[in-house]
Amino acid sequence: MSKNELKTLQDALRTFAADRDWDQFHTPKNLATALNVEAGELLEHFQWLKDEESRNLPDPVRQAVAEEIADVLLYLVRLADKLNVDLLEAARRKIELNAKKYPVELARGNATKHTKFRR
Amino acid sequence: MSKNELKTLQDALRTFAADRDWDQFHTPKNLATALNVEAGELLEHFQWLKDEESRNLPDPVRQAVAEEIADVLLYLVRLADKLNVDLLEAARRKIELNAKKYPVELARGNATKHTKFRR
Amino acid sequence: MSKNELKTLQDALRTFAADRDWDQFHTPKNLATALNVEAGELLEHFQWLKDEESRNLPDPVRQAVAEEIADVLLYLVRLADKLNVDLLEAARRKIELNAKKYPVELARGNATKHTKFRR
Amino acid sequence: MSKNELKTLQDALRTFAADRDWDQFHTPKNLATALNVEAGELLEHFQWLKDEESRNLPDPVRQAVAEEIADVLLYLVRLADKLNVDLLEAARRKIELNAKKYPVELARGNATKHTKFRR
Repeated sequence: MSKNELKTLQDALRTFAADRDWDQFHTPKNLATALNVEAGELLEHFQWLKDEESRNLPDPVRQAVAEEIADVLLYLVRLADKLNVDLLEAARRKIELNAKKYPVELARGNATKHTKFRR
Repeated sequence: MSKNELKTLQDALRTFAADRDWDQFHTPKNLATALNVEAGELLEHFQWLKDEESRNLPDPVRQAVAEEIADVLLYLVRLADKLNVDLLEAARRKIELNAKKYPVELARGNATKHTKFRR
Repeated sequence: MSKNELKTLQDALRTFAADRDWDQFHTPKNLATALNVEAGELLEHFQWLKDEESRNLPDPVRQAVAEEIADVLLYLVRLADKLNVDLLEAARRKIELNAKKYPVELARGNATKHTKFRR
Repeated sequence: MSKNELKTLQDALRTFAADRDWDQFHTPKNLATALNVEAGELLEHFQWLKDEESRNLPDPVRQAVAEEIADVLLYLVRLADKLNVDLLEAARRKIELNAKKYPVELARGNATKHTKFRR
């Protein structure tokens, strides 16, 4: 999977769904819903942790978190496929957009939302 | 970005955060939280749509959805980086696991959760 | 619990937390996080259902959903308490606000977000 | 609204939806989805805050949070109504259940999930 990693993943998920006749369930709405469910399961691991604890997860927790991260990624890839969205292209465009919204000199050490910046 | 697409993305996000001194905010807990917020914004576009409508988004909505998908991906890549999780490796492992949990003959045309299968 | 139902609930949850020395965990941030986790568990029950199926849940599912609804309510009451927000007052104010944002003549049979109305 | 506060709220929301012919959109699935979207908007206010900051919200933030709390409550009441779930009854039952799952002597000062207790 040295190149086109996400494309390879996308193809694997297409086959997985086709083999199980799951395309009927995989509407974009349902995939966005399932993605939220998995995001919630990911968040559950962190809900009572202090920030510092979240930086030092015990290994079994880190493994469990890695599985939830994978679940989110799989639904994300599947949703992008169904909507014909190029995931990497969208990500790169978003980074460029964020660079404009959060210029270094204004955003430095500052988590304020860009719409609240005093320019 | 022909190879190691996710690695390239990961490096871009590291630089982005370092330039803005944002690592102090990017605890795994906060990143998992931000990911959920973005997942909610993604879901918002679908909340009142019928399944069929969600398969045929008007182009401006599809563009807006693509941006939210990108936001989720960026936080996912960033979180995986902070936790030292190999995103693709985790995704591949999860697909294998799902193949065992949802064998074709039991899962065919059936969205029942694997724990509810009558084997 | 004929009057001040929510206040009674709020007091019960205060005692529950105090008995267990849980106020240290119940920061508004953590409570908002836990609320999202429970909202995700609620959503999980619906993720693959068609709209019509969601109107006719089998009784065991309805019971499970009721439990998740309760979980969301409990965290909501607890969060409002911690932030000194009067839940009913906030709800009534929001209904009034919504009545202005969604006037009957514009909103009738129409799920468009108020900011998109052509007035 | 001195008694049956939630019932009064429920009736107000029924009328609100009926006046706008919105029952067609208010399937339990869609309401659970909308609830998650609002829960995400609530969480957004906390995403970069430290725990201590979340205990001391500036007043405009606290007001904005109160509005999001109200949004969650309104969808929760509406969903319970559609599923014929008695919200207060469900909440009281859940508190009793939690009291059994988290006995004071085991849960004291401890955010461990009940399934992980060493009994």
